[in-house]
Amino acid sequence: MNHEIHLVKRPEAAPTHEHFEMVESEKPEPGEGEVLVKMLYVSVDPYMRGRMNDTKSYIAPFELNAPIEGGAIAEVTHSKASHLSEGDIITGMLPWKEYAVAKADSLRKIDPSLGPVTTSLGVLGMPGLTAYFGLMDIGQPKEGETIVVSGAAGAVGTTVVQIGKIVGCRVVGIAGSDEKTSYLKDELGVDETINYKKENVYEALQKACPDGIDVYFDNVGGDISDAVYPQLNKFARITQCGAIASYNVPNDQGPRMQMHLIKSSALIKGFTVGDYQDRFKEGFDELSKWLKEGRLTYEETVVEGFENIPDAFFGLFEGSNLGKQLVKVAEPSHSS
Amino acid sequence: MNHEIHLVKRPEAAPTHEHFEMVESEKPEPGEGEVLVKMLYVSVDPYMRGRMNDTKSYIAPFELNAPIEGGAIAEVTHSKASHLSEGDIITGMLPWKEYAVAKADSLRKIDPSLGPVTTSLGVLGMPGLTAYFGLMDIGQPKEGETIVVSGAAGAVGTTVVQIGKIVGCRVVGIAGSDEKTSYLKDELGVDETINYKKENVYEALQKACPDGIDVYFDNVGGDISDAVYPQLNKFARITQCGAIASYNVPNDQGPRMQMHLIKSSALIKGFTVGDYQDRFKEGFDELSKWLKEGRLTYEETVVEGFENIPDAFFGLFEGSNLGKQLVKVAEPSHSS
Repeated sequence: MNHEIHLVKRPEAAPTHEHFEMVESEKPEPGEGEVLVKMLYVSVDPYMRGRMNDTKSYIAPFELNAPIEGGAIAEVTHSKASHLSEGDIITGMLPWKEYAVAKADSLRKIDPSLGPVTTSLGVLGMPGLTAYFGLMDIGQPKEGETIVVSGAAGAVGTTVVQIGKIVGCRVVGIAGSDEKTSYLKDELGVDETINYKKENVYEALQKACPDGIDVYFDNVGGDISDAVYPQLNKFARITQCGAIASYNVPNDQGPRMQMHLIKSSALIKGFTVGDYQDRFKEGFDELSKWLKEGRLTYEETVVEGFENIPDAFFGLFEGSNLGKQLVKVAEPSHSS
Repeated sequence: MNHEIHLVKRPEAAPTHEHFEMVESEKPEPGEGEVLVKMLYVSVDPYMRGRMNDTKSYIAPFELNAPIEGGAIAEVTHSKASHLSEGDIITGMLPWKEYAVAKADSLRKIDPSLGPVTTSLGVLGMPGLTAYFGLMDIGQPKEGETIVVSGAAGAVGTTVVQIGKIVGCRVVGIAGSDEKTSYLKDELGVDETINYKKENVYEALQKACPDGIDVYFDNVGGDISDAVYPQLNKFARITQCGAIASYNVPNDQGPRMQMHLIKSSALIKGFTVGDYQDRFKEGFDELSKWLKEGRLTYEETVVEGFENIPDAFFGLFEGSNLGKQLVKVAEPSHSS
């Protein structure tokens, strides 16, 4: 017997169990060029919330009464494709199913010599590349500048703060618990941290950024960003990576910020990692090198059990995760 | 007897007569390297509102109980500087005084062969350069793209829409009266216009921009911009030139827009014309050439009388001006 998790209702605000349903199904059969895979790890990511709305975006909305689809790691259990074999560990966009069929061309075989397979959903996957291109291409950090990172303890944020240190910047990380700020400071070498649940972010930023803010890597939007905008230096760059504070708030309102951009001749650029598809190899190579050299590390928060995917997803909006949030669905049948 | 107009109180919201005072003074004496000038034209510009607040910005706030300072055209009536002579017509930043002393080095002699002297406060001056660099450098318009311009009938907007046509774009202009939209369409060749006081801007944009919006030159911010953000094309560029809708609204609130930037991988860049100081000659040469070729034209709204400068300034926030708003203070003593 197979299980799938479907989106059955579009959330207006925060997603809850009423919007999802676990459904029993048959194990599917792969066709020519396809493989049957057994899900090992599922990635839950804040951007997926956007696909639950029925609005035009850079990526099509999820269909109702069909499985959610997202980044995952799986093991090939039956192959009808020439370049994948039983036992191969692959990553790709897969439906939330314990067993799924996928076109072999849409999957990437993981090279386990590069690190634990889960890194392909984190520091060596979409979140790592998001951090790399968002910071380097949009943020354009220069040695000695001050970078502020919101959502600093998440999968993307933890990578951004470390790249910020690698390129010689003063890095200030904003996160939502003392456990997270301690991790950022003690393990990742972040210069100053702010616990936004305890501190006045505007005042804490004034103290943490005596020379102003040159680069703001924004994962959250909302009132944390409101506190950043007035403190931007001339020609500041803002990487608009996410806006998780707004995802569950219909018609979210806040102070208009155009005047701050004019005053500081600042730039904001939104992006999604797919914009950099042509340069993925560059980013992957840099991240792999730093990881191998020990200059880059990562953290994972792992929830166990296929049925717990929705809870792990909800947790993203409560900040339950330190580093990359994963759901472990099964052990590989073959050791890898 | 000389007259000056002072800022005597900082406006919290809209500026009114209570914030200004006309003061009598002595005609000043120029020192070595200085000239005495007679004011001919005073420029009133929306950005000046920002200098009336006591907040850090790209330019220092105006002092209280001292004359406002702004762009102006004046005639040299007494020179103690080698390179300026009595009768020369100059432009520069001057205090709101009928007669003022200025350092000759801070003034630029106007070449009357390039056009009427007033163009040095408009199409061949700060507003023209603002339009040129904001559109060309930030907007990066490509032939066939759609440009939306808010505040399209103002000094900057009228130049932006024409440059947009010169570079081969579809241009949509938003303005606040039928007189203005007719001018934009009939005189400047704008493809589609929207009267924001009569029309639902969101719906009118949908109709006017069937292929979406590639470039948004924003002079106004506020709810006009709110209507633009959801209609941006992938990789759209927004030139944040002004935000006049917010200047008189303390803590102006509106829908948060970060999600729109992410969805469309769009860029917003604030700027002030001073950012392009090193390239002024390039802009000036291009604008002069287009003007000479008849590809660029301009409009002026002229109020008469030194004492009416504040009213002309207030009018900017009510949209009283078509094209460049000027105040004519006096005739030149010598014909130029």
